[in-house]
Amino acid sequence: MKLEHEVELRVRYPECDPMGIVHHSRYFIYFEIARTELYRLNGGDYRQMEESGRFFVVVNADCKYMKPARYDDILRITIKVEKVTRAKIVHEYKIHRGDDLLAVAHITLAMINREGKIILIPEEFQK
Amino acid sequence: MKLEHEVELRVRYPECDPMGIVHHSRYFIYFEIARTELYRLNGGDYRQMEESGRFFVVVNADCKYMKPARYDDILRITIKVEKVTRAKIVHEYKIHRGDDLLAVAHITLAMINREGKIILIPEEFQK
Amino acid sequence: MKLEHEVELRVRYPECDPMGIVHHSRYFIYFEIARTELYRLNGGDYRQMEESGRFFVVVNADCKYMKPARYDDILRITIKVEKVTRAKIVHEYKIHRGDDLLAVAHITLAMINREGKIILIPEEFQK
Amino acid sequence: MKLEHEVELRVRYPECDPMGIVHHSRYFIYFEIARTELYRLNGGDYRQMEESGRFFVVVNADCKYMKPARYDDILRITIKVEKVTRAKIVHEYKIHRGDDLLAVAHITLAMINREGKIILIPEEFQK
Repeated sequence: MKLEHEVELRVRYPECDPMGIVHHSRYFIYFEIARTELYRLNGGDYRQMEESGRFFVVVNADCKYMKPARYDDILRITIKVEKVTRAKIVHEYKIHRGDDLLAVAHITLAMINREGKIILIPEEFQK
Repeated sequence: MKLEHEVELRVRYPECDPMGIVHHSRYFIYFEIARTELYRLNGGDYRQMEESGRFFVVVNADCKYMKPARYDDILRITIKVEKVTRAKIVHEYKIHRGDDLLAVAHITLAMINREGKIILIPEEFQK
Repeated sequence: MKLEHEVELRVRYPECDPMGIVHHSRYFIYFEIARTELYRLNGGDYRQMEESGRFFVVVNADCKYMKPARYDDILRITIKVEKVTRAKIVHEYKIHRGDDLLAVAHITLAMINREGKIILIPEEFQK
Repeated sequence: MKLEHEVELRVRYPECDPMGIVHHSRYFIYFEIARTELYRLNGGDYRQMEESGRFFVVVNADCKYMKPARYDDILRITIKVEKVTRAKIVHEYKIHRGDDLLAVAHITLAMINREGKIILIPEEFQK
């Protein structure tokens, strides 16, 4: 099972605000892409998981913004599993542009069912 | 039954792109707000409608952009029912800032069920 | 000078994801609206400030998500100045739906000039 | 000079709405990505162009939505130059998922300078 992954993406025009930089809210969309791909790499499929009635929700997030990302930049988003318990998963994320570290974040997920009730994280995520 | 309505909203920062103007894609979000409010005014509730398994989908849209909207502008979005048949509803939309007309659009809706199949527009929309 | 404010807004359809809840990234857009309005209340105008070559950038953000917000919900976003130094401003934010507390966040801002260099927070923000 | 191009992209989670389908407003973001890449292929660079004080703005857009795109779908966005005059450029766009045609659109661009005044399309775009 892979515990780390990285994806590369190019900043889209409407992800940037009038300052010409990526709006701070969009970083969480980038992190989610890396998370989806790490899960896919391990044989998982978010769409199937959701169709089976289990959903990951974000319960906590923090992000430190060091340098701005700009339109058309190619960014490298890295994800690392930091902690997995029966109740939650914590990932660490970094965004680089070349050698420059632009941001570091941590996001904590819990799992819910179709009724919105918290359920235990399945064994497959506990390695 | 009301066939026209208008809503007022203030342009949000991340709705604007590096040119400092509202990205053309966001206008469709503004139009949808006016549509929701016209429906509410007539006693309808999109959320309830969706919970009952009926959904409006956009099948056609066009927009003419005359003047740009900017961050923090107060915009007036008007909606008017243009045509209703058993298969579709067409609305016309306009965006004004003060007396300036910024955009004119037409959006055609059809109705689908939970399986994604086209269904007839309910009588209540036919007046 | 007012150090607290609250704004009310209605959740828009495309702010919600396939789970039917507001995507966690959008909360930061709501917080920014409250921040803009608090500043306006104190006689400030972000657009003018930016035209004069001074910009606020987010350098740190965290958010605890307690309960999900849904499409069409009316939310109350509160902002409170937590700390102001010569280098940064920290605000605390809360999101309520009726009496339910949905989220609590902290966002730290720094100020930059047109060249992207960090500058001191002007006196007017130091009270 | 290339007059056609195609890009492939995967639908992101928050691009989908509570119906589980890509919100109709987001298609215009996909089209813009194809446009940027066609321009890059011909040696152009939107970011540089904007830094030199020339900007493309959308003056007209239409889109016909035939079948919905869903979360995690891989989409193929094609762009074709339809018409170029001294005042505007028209592109045609199509979105496919495998052999399925999901949408067809036309977008008309004009060029403005830093003051927002319409200027002539440079020779380089006239072939």
